[in-house]
Amino acid sequence: MNIPDINLKRIVIIGGGFGGLRLAKKLTTQNFQVVLLDRHNYHTFQPLLYQVATAGLEPDSIAHAIRTIFAKKENFFFRIANVEKVDTLDQKIYSDIGNIHYDYLIIATGSETNYYGNENIQKHSMPMKTVPEALDLRSLILQNLESALLTNDLDERYRLMNYVIVGGGPTGVELAGAMGELKKHVLPNDYPDLDIRRMNVHLIQAADRLLPTMSHNASDKARKYLEELGVQVWFNTLVKDYDGIHVDTDGKDLKATTLIWTAGVKGAMIPGVGNDENAKGGRLLVNEFNLVKGYDNVYAIGDIALMITEKNPQGDPMVAQVAIQQGQLLAKNLNHLKSGKPMKPFKYNDKGSMATIGRDKAVVDLPGWKFAGWFAWLVWMFVHLVSLVGFRNKVIALMNWVVQYFQYNKSVRLIIRPYRKKH
Amino acid sequence: MNIPDINLKRIVIIGGGFGGLRLAKKLTTQNFQVVLLDRHNYHTFQPLLYQVATAGLEPDSIAHAIRTIFAKKENFFFRIANVEKVDTLDQKIYSDIGNIHYDYLIIATGSETNYYGNENIQKHSMPMKTVPEALDLRSLILQNLESALLTNDLDERYRLMNYVIVGGGPTGVELAGAMGELKKHVLPNDYPDLDIRRMNVHLIQAADRLLPTMSHNASDKARKYLEELGVQVWFNTLVKDYDGIHVDTDGKDLKATTLIWTAGVKGAMIPGVGNDENAKGGRLLVNEFNLVKGYDNVYAIGDIALMITEKNPQGDPMVAQVAIQQGQLLAKNLNHLKSGKPMKPFKYNDKGSMATIGRDKAVVDLPGWKFAGWFAWLVWMFVHLVSLVGFRNKVIALMNWVVQYFQYNKSVRLIIRPYRKKH
Repeated sequence: MNIPDINLKRIVIIGGGFGGLRLAKKLTTQNFQVVLLDRHNYHTFQPLLYQVATAGLEPDSIAHAIRTIFAKKENFFFRIANVEKVDTLDQKIYSDIGNIHYDYLIIATGSETNYYGNENIQKHSMPMKTVPEALDLRSLILQNLESALLTNDLDERYRLMNYVIVGGGPTGVELAGAMGELKKHVLPNDYPDLDIRRMNVHLIQAADRLLPTMSHNASDKARKYLEELGVQVWFNTLVKDYDGIHVDTDGKDLKATTLIWTAGVKGAMIPGVGNDENAKGGRLLVNEFNLVKGYDNVYAIGDIALMITEKNPQGDPMVAQVAIQQGQLLAKNLNHLKSGKPMKPFKYNDKGSMATIGRDKAVVDLPGWKFAGWFAWLVWMFVHLVSLVGFRNKVIALMNWVVQYFQYNKSVRLIIRPYRKKH
Repeated sequence: MNIPDINLKRIVIIGGGFGGLRLAKKLTTQNFQVVLLDRHNYHTFQPLLYQVATAGLEPDSIAHAIRTIFAKKENFFFRIANVEKVDTLDQKIYSDIGNIHYDYLIIATGSETNYYGNENIQKHSMPMKTVPEALDLRSLILQNLESALLTNDLDERYRLMNYVIVGGGPTGVELAGAMGELKKHVLPNDYPDLDIRRMNVHLIQAADRLLPTMSHNASDKARKYLEELGVQVWFNTLVKDYDGIHVDTDGKDLKATTLIWTAGVKGAMIPGVGNDENAKGGRLLVNEFNLVKGYDNVYAIGDIALMITEKNPQGDPMVAQVAIQQGQLLAKNLNHLKSGKPMKPFKYNDKGSMATIGRDKAVVDLPGWKFAGWFAWLVWMFVHLVSLVGFRNKVIALMNWVVQYFQYNKSVRLIIRPYRKKH
């Protein structure tokens, strides 16, 4: 790679998600050369991917070009790269754009969809972890309705109009809500020659409530809001298999062309880092300074990192806030390396959690205050607008939400690139 | 296809471009069943495709879902379909979604890129006639800069940073202007570790002036504005061949990884309609009522139609306004069929033409008033905003233009789907 050789220690960050981005921003590049690698040339605001999938937002609202963010930063280098493996003895990263040496390595690769080893589900279901995946899902949702118009086989038509979402966490709940809105308010106008009442959105949850990491109040409200939108919620139900048509659960007879899998994530591991103990649950064990166990110059932050302490034997949840706070602290700690200041240990400051259901409802759990409904939706919207990277993204997302609030029909139901099954 | 059988004559329109869309809107569906077929589920506002290619606008500003436009129309059916051929004796259309009978057929398929038989150019150059093609071009423009960062071979680097646009019509001029803006104002910030001064935008024109269908004043100003943006304009130059690296012209030694071909269009013909005489210049000969020569129930409108009359032996230009006006009149004429009113002949009302160059300059030729510069750009912007389909598209496009006017850096330089050469 064509990176100037200067007399600075080189920090290589793999991954421009919430953690990697914050870390790169806060690192003082008088002390280091910083190299950021990512598969894409943009940062993805993952919490809003479901809105891209359901045609509420375009990618430009939730993606932000990484180069633009760092336009003014000295000693900073960004490269699009797929990292293939790391040689920690040689301190070298192998990638599709060549090899690169590091002095400090930060693994901020986040998480990927976890199918728990079920190859059928992996093959036939739709994931929603990246912008292209969300766009594929959007295309498929619309394509299936177009196909439903063309068939006279009623079984096939209803299969095409059945959308099964597996996983009752925030992603599954928010996606189900947006699909419910489409069904209730948007699609009947778009498809007057199709009986949209026969369209079904199923949300399948293994636990006995939705949003199990939130309060019971939030779970109950989320369920209520979803059911008002016509979403069918199934509790205590495991999806064991899926062949592209039959959803194999205990007892339910579901047939669906589209199954969206949001039922699990695991760390996006990189070959060469970690060992059996480290890779437990697909995450890297780190100490309270985010140093990966067994290394002295390899750190991990965000979803990929599992920080188990006496006080916190479960580790922190795999959410954006943890990644951001770890990135922030690690930057500070690394900036202080030269001056010999001691590193500060990480402690997660839980600011609360929230989820939106449909166009104008949300559930919010703040420390000490739990509420739901329209005001919660305003809070949700405000928090997400503030968190979006970049002025343009904020303005465009806000405008889309405002327009859609007053007029359902203004979403962008475009099949730009038709989705074709790869098998 | 699953279309209710009712006792109305069926008009099938192939193509949801400017002509087909206007026609479908204006047809009174008390008199007819109207079926509109298109390859995409959206109408494309082609004049702004170059802004999608250069990251100024997102697809949702220039594409509009066809179903949304016709949500309230009775006896109207839209289907995504690729028409394979037409049997005019049997009055039947063959497509990838099945066959469909018509009473009246309207061909509004528009135009496609014309490579004048050169397979090398077709294989190695980038077209820009559809939204996916514009997105591919955007990805490639950015990918090439990323690749230029990675190579130490100077020849290769400069090749990657050479962008050759062939064709000095409105598309070529507007694209070159937008690329010039990127080079001058945007990319130096994005690529501090690349010498963007070595990037070149070449605009190659076969004639001796740009915009040959406009006034000489417009041609001169367009050239001046482009040169101010650092675009290299070549006149009287033919591109004879291109192998992916070498641009074969008379004398110039150009090497470029990216060649964008805007040097010609031809009618998008459908097998089964027309004969040798009809297919002259890749367009269908029509009479003054847009009836295709040799048929009594097959019409053609827009770019695909060539209407030659005594007063107008060249026919009208292949532009949106002609298509719109023909669609409008044909709808009126067909609506009157039942009442037996005589059809009105078509006469093109030329409202003028315009082209924009860069961020805030344009050339405008109105009947009786030709002007250029900043005010022309305001007029250009106003006209395009008014013409965009749908309130949301107008608002979002306007906002993008206003933001970019004040801050260059706000464009959306995202490589969502990397472009991979197909050969």
